[in-house]
Amino acid sequence: MPTRPTITAFKASPDRGQGLARDMRVRWALEEVGQPYDVRLVTFAEMKEPAHRALHPFGQIPTYEEGDLVLFETGGIVFHIADTRPGLLPDEPNARARAITWMFAALSTVEQSIVELQFVMFAERGKSWQDERRAMVHDRIRARMGELSQRLGDADWLDGAFSAADLIMASVLLRTRGSGLLDEYPNLAAYVARAEARPAYQRAFAEQLAVFEASQAAG
Amino acid sequence: MPTRPTITAFKASPDRGQGLARDMRVRWALEEVGQPYDVRLVTFAEMKEPAHRALHPFGQIPTYEEGDLVLFETGGIVFHIADTRPGLLPDEPNARARAITWMFAALSTVEQSIVELQFVMFAERGKSWQDERRAMVHDRIRARMGELSQRLGDADWLDGAFSAADLIMASVLLRTRGSGLLDEYPNLAAYVARAEARPAYQRAFAEQLAVFEASQAAG
Repeated sequence: MPTRPTITAFKASPDRGQGLARDMRVRWALEEVGQPYDVRLVTFAEMKEPAHRALHPFGQIPTYEEGDLVLFETGGIVFHIADTRPGLLPDEPNARARAITWMFAALSTVEQSIVELQFVMFAERGKSWQDERRAMVHDRIRARMGELSQRLGDADWLDGAFSAADLIMASVLLRTRGSGLLDEYPNLAAYVARAEARPAYQRAFAEQLAVFEASQAAG
Repeated sequence: MPTRPTITAFKASPDRGQGLARDMRVRWALEEVGQPYDVRLVTFAEMKEPAHRALHPFGQIPTYEEGDLVLFETGGIVFHIADTRPGLLPDEPNARARAITWMFAALSTVEQSIVELQFVMFAERGKSWQDERRAMVHDRIRARMGELSQRLGDADWLDGAFSAADLIMASVLLRTRGSGLLDEYPNLAAYVARAEARPAYQRAFAEQLAVFEASQAAG
């Protein structure tokens, strides 16, 4: 039986409990494999202090502590959970390798422009070029979504049964919801809806929302 | 003995053989583990055709074929090579998990703004805001490099012996060379130089340069 892990999450998430902070991906993975866990909440100030940076060199959340093991990057944490507990990666070696390639694809090829959209919306607020840049980044996101939509077709999941690849890809696509782009690709919107309907997603979502609500009540 | 793999690479790389195209990362990994391989060269037009998209949903290089297995994303391919041949990942489970978390960190947290710089330099050429955007993205890259520099300190590699994590991280940092940013962090510049000095890197670099030179000779 693996050791019960502790993760970190925002004390008051900037997304106001919409489930877009990256601890959500780790919570969801832990719920999928039925692994109970503890959560340590950190403020923005605490994330930048040496104690937290010893766990996470880039001063972010989530981190993951399990006995002597410390991990700090969402993709690496979700991979570790999937690699050490049954349920999130296929046993057949080729299918497993393909699922892992999709995890990397979601977090680099697909998420690149989706993260960039956050910079346009926040760091470039008030710049004369913001509208033009937003349109350019939207088109970059559409290019990737169009290719992904083609590949997915009418399949339920990226490659056979639900896996850590779908967990990561759906989490990446979810971040575009405010832009309306996802609705331009009905099969991707349905894919994300299927992911959100999973009981493990629902439990993880409720947990992170409860943290945000508690922060507001205390505030 | 694993099957001899076939990868794809640009017939005429847009980086003119500087080793910045992503097949370089895969060639380097294959050289590190001593795995001979074949290369199929593709033009820009061929990359977007159905035959190549069947291998790579996003119409890019590299792809990786090994018997019945097809992989398409650099991180996933390098992971697979490291997972199936000795030499690129530690055996000890915690050290292995940490190396994998660094692979994901390099390709998402660190490379995000480095890829974005390419968009600034090419897609935003001639825009009135290009200089201001370049300065903003440079600062984003500096933030990550500063944190990475702090963590690396005077160690040779990210976490003990050279691993797939260093292969990916050095490849990501190398892409900034034209910007001069790497030289602002002497320990990172030395880290990249150590990586480039590895015989496996040198062999991979020579192979991809020979492809570019042949494409120029062929006219």
